[in-house]
Amino acid sequence: MEKRVGVLGGGQLGAMLAEAANLLRIPVNILDVGHSSAKQITHLGTHIEGSFKDPEAIKKLAACSDVVTVEIEHVDTHILEEIAAAGADVQPHWKTLRTIQDKYEQKLCLINDDVATARSVSLKNAAVADLEGAAGSLGLPLMLKSRREAYDGRGNFAVQSKDDFRPALEALGGDRELYAEKWANFTMELAVMVVKTKDTVLSFPTTETVHENSICKLTYTPARGVSKTIDQQAQALARKAVACFAGKGVFGVEMFLVEGDKLLVNEIAPRPHNSGHYTIEACPVSQYEAHLSAILDLPLHQESLRLNQPAIMLNILGGETEDSHMKVVEEAMKLAVRPKIHLYGKGKARKGRKMGHLTVTAATMREAEEIMQPLIDFVDTQNGKKVFGKSSKPQKPMTAKDTPLVAVLMGSDSDLPKLSGGLDILAQFKVPYTTRVTSAHRTPKAMAQFAETAADRGIEVILAAAGGAAHLPGMVAAYTSLPVIGIPIKPSLGDGMDSVLSILNMPKGVPVATVSLNNGHNAALLAVRILGIKYPIMRERYEAFMVESEKGVLAKDSRMEEVGGREYLKGMGV
Amino acid sequence: MEKRVGVLGGGQLGAMLAEAANLLRIPVNILDVGHSSAKQITHLGTHIEGSFKDPEAIKKLAACSDVVTVEIEHVDTHILEEIAAAGADVQPHWKTLRTIQDKYEQKLCLINDDVATARSVSLKNAAVADLEGAAGSLGLPLMLKSRREAYDGRGNFAVQSKDDFRPALEALGGDRELYAEKWANFTMELAVMVVKTKDTVLSFPTTETVHENSICKLTYTPARGVSKTIDQQAQALARKAVACFAGKGVFGVEMFLVEGDKLLVNEIAPRPHNSGHYTIEACPVSQYEAHLSAILDLPLHQESLRLNQPAIMLNILGGETEDSHMKVVEEAMKLAVRPKIHLYGKGKARKGRKMGHLTVTAATMREAEEIMQPLIDFVDTQNGKKVFGKSSKPQKPMTAKDTPLVAVLMGSDSDLPKLSGGLDILAQFKVPYTTRVTSAHRTPKAMAQFAETAADRGIEVILAAAGGAAHLPGMVAAYTSLPVIGIPIKPSLGDGMDSVLSILNMPKGVPVATVSLNNGHNAALLAVRILGIKYPIMRERYEAFMVESEKGVLAKDSRMEEVGGREYLKGMGV
Repeated sequence: MEKRVGVLGGGQLGAMLAEAANLLRIPVNILDVGHSSAKQITHLGTHIEGSFKDPEAIKKLAACSDVVTVEIEHVDTHILEEIAAAGADVQPHWKTLRTIQDKYEQKLCLINDDVATARSVSLKNAAVADLEGAAGSLGLPLMLKSRREAYDGRGNFAVQSKDDFRPALEALGGDRELYAEKWANFTMELAVMVVKTKDTVLSFPTTETVHENSICKLTYTPARGVSKTIDQQAQALARKAVACFAGKGVFGVEMFLVEGDKLLVNEIAPRPHNSGHYTIEACPVSQYEAHLSAILDLPLHQESLRLNQPAIMLNILGGETEDSHMKVVEEAMKLAVRPKIHLYGKGKARKGRKMGHLTVTAATMREAEEIMQPLIDFVDTQNGKKVFGKSSKPQKPMTAKDTPLVAVLMGSDSDLPKLSGGLDILAQFKVPYTTRVTSAHRTPKAMAQFAETAADRGIEVILAAAGGAAHLPGMVAAYTSLPVIGIPIKPSLGDGMDSVLSILNMPKGVPVATVSLNNGHNAALLAVRILGIKYPIMRERYEAFMVESEKGVLAKDSRMEEVGGREYLKGMGV
Repeated sequence: MEKRVGVLGGGQLGAMLAEAANLLRIPVNILDVGHSSAKQITHLGTHIEGSFKDPEAIKKLAACSDVVTVEIEHVDTHILEEIAAAGADVQPHWKTLRTIQDKYEQKLCLINDDVATARSVSLKNAAVADLEGAAGSLGLPLMLKSRREAYDGRGNFAVQSKDDFRPALEALGGDRELYAEKWANFTMELAVMVVKTKDTVLSFPTTETVHENSICKLTYTPARGVSKTIDQQAQALARKAVACFAGKGVFGVEMFLVEGDKLLVNEIAPRPHNSGHYTIEACPVSQYEAHLSAILDLPLHQESLRLNQPAIMLNILGGETEDSHMKVVEEAMKLAVRPKIHLYGKGKARKGRKMGHLTVTAATMREAEEIMQPLIDFVDTQNGKKVFGKSSKPQKPMTAKDTPLVAVLMGSDSDLPKLSGGLDILAQFKVPYTTRVTSAHRTPKAMAQFAETAADRGIEVILAAAGGAAHLPGMVAAYTSLPVIGIPIKPSLGDGMDSVLSILNMPKGVPVATVSLNNGHNAALLAVRILGIKYPIMRERYEAFMVESEKGVLAKDSRMEEVGGREYLKGMGV
């Protein structure tokens, strides 16, 4: 680890790269003007004063570095080509940077390698006639984009109708080359950080990105409500996309999840990316350490890119005043569980400028959301956005908080009254749950489909109530690997032993945890005990419940001892 | 966060403090000679060239800092007293540093505040007669210690018998002041990092420290095999100990856990400490960020010091050659899951010098151990220590890996044959388990004690088998918050419905998951399903099992279709 890394650009991405390098005491040479973010926090290398677009400065950087890399793709690739020809090790390859700089070229490259992406048409001239032609081919609305120098939404214009043609061209046009992209009616934006090493392509988990005014606001990892299958598909697509490009290093792949769970690559960044900040706290190896490992040929395995804990990242953006973003930091400091605060040392803010970010990791996404939500609300309030409290419903974004951990199934809604005590217990222990009517006999397919996909949708324990033939718990257990608790319900005829035995006497190989007749109460308590092995808070609540329950019975004993059995009976109205 | 922090000392503790400050862009001024560890990685403040014992340099540091703190306690407290008198904000208080520098004074201070610690006697002179007197009072063996300038075991001598008196005095003596400490026959060494803020005293989780040649080698957090009660007691004791001292900041409290689960404070460090490195990766706020928060009066809450995930820290120590420690780093790089590597940039190593450290965090201690153990073995092999493979037994240190996740209880050993299928399942799924005979009727106290402490000892699911009156599962459930699976065993008399109903019909409030008669097989499968909600590997194994099980039955179907029922019966020997 004696090799020196030269970086074109000294912004926050360079700074976080330097932080990772500091841990390994890898010298990092930063080329940028002034006391830029990255220069502030490493004192091991030789910093170069100058613009990362200045040929002389780049040559100076190359002269004192063993590998040259970038933290921004808007660099002069001709100089990189020149220094590479003279023997410098430039990563990723200058050709990759050149292709990616031109977003339309990037797109052609993906299409050429059969990577799913939105259809695009380049405009010969920034003229209404050309745009009309594109609209004819792609339909409206469409996205008009500048081929170069576009980031954080700058260089994009959403063309809703023909009336937007002229304003769009005026906003983006002039001498810029443009292309039009088919409108992606996405349900969600996803991103995957990919690592290209000298001999393989690895990927970090799929992250959910939330943009506001075309700027990344939040990331949630794992992506909420996204199945394992989609996660794997997104990673595979991202690896395939990056495999198109030459050279080593980390690449950020932004994607759309569109209807029918189809994935489309949106854009690729040939460097660490905002949507991968979460990896610093949440993965064994961060995207920055991975980038260093890739360009320095240090060993790196897929397992090191796994998610240790769910994570939420919130960008700290410049606000109305030069220091209004620091109010968010102050709020973060006050929280009981403090998020990890990353400030970039960029001085005074402009509106929308990335000044820092916050990351929360926790045992569950639910818990991470509970920690982060007050800060999201604070930021929204600062920006004059309406924040929805608990009483309001529709506009609040979907949160894992609202996704159930327990599913309570019943063969018929007539079983529901018998389950009321159990639902009370789940509510008392703050276990998010869903109640569903699904019958082994009357809706066998819906039941099978529910049971098969329950684990994928975040459910961890299933309660199933049934009476008489009472096949539901056993049939659900046949379709899932989750623990299933069976609640025998007494039918109107007979003593209920039919329900009990049908649920209890499962064949070897498919277990159901059976409780006594009509005892939804105990089934719910059992679910809480089970959740307690994963969530310490559930165990704590259960232990408190045991103490209270004991106190309750002891109090009755005291009273009975005090007043005597006769008197006590009167109190019972007997 | 405009305040500048001045640090006496630029070693690894100063460096990690600077790393935490970098994230918040807090300027840190380091006073030390040369391009010391801390100076390498911060470029925000004004570094001072000179010794942290040099009065002029300290004054220079104070002049450019808003708060002055230390990363080492062996500083000149008279200069600190002088600059404090002149208005400098010195944290912790110079009096605290002065008291703690003298380990015997430190001890008297603790005793004065009624903090449990090993009994000690100061030696008037470093003479045999004085040591004899101390041995008379404290017994032998005892620990002879230098009052000052002692660290990493230097300045300590274990006096086993009278024959050691002279060698001990020669090793430590000369003009040094000495004291003798009663031998602590500890079962384990623990440490707690405490944070003293302007208005409260907070604590990090209790960590288990493993020393070798008196140098910290490993820390495990949470401490393995230590109950929650002891963890809480250790934190309370550490907070009480630190409350004795004036000023703000982080303190490391080292403790002994002696027989009878008694805790004794060993030593206190008035600064971040090796045993708290794990907090960087494992807690929302690290000990370094906590130190900055305390001395800069930033808000800080106890919840931010919680453990997000179990963690193991391994020190990288200088070995036989100047760079042999780098071999450990190379090994760490090769692992599938790479630990977080912290190198200190100290240049060439001396034997035993702290050159860096590695931290692993994982969902469970078991998994963290699986990642770290190869590196511990590598270090031990490097040091010529015998490494014990899986086949050898006794000397291998206790690991969480060997502690059971499932307890299989039975009222009588006569139930064991009925459970054989269940034990096979647990083995097949690689679930570590323990089998115990405990009876609700014949050993009620042992049963209650087992059930009450099971969760504390790492057990997560209990299987309990019983026949006839069959009280065991229900009684165990009454004493624990863990999920209990009841297995009714058919008694020699009757059809077994007595066993079933006794286990199934639990009163509201205490649930037992009941399986069918003699079905230990399904009870074990249910345990695996439950563990699957916490351990993804268990879920994966279970899903593979379901696929295999389905294949098995389908194969039988094919065969029966092929040969016909008649022929198939013959194959069954009917």
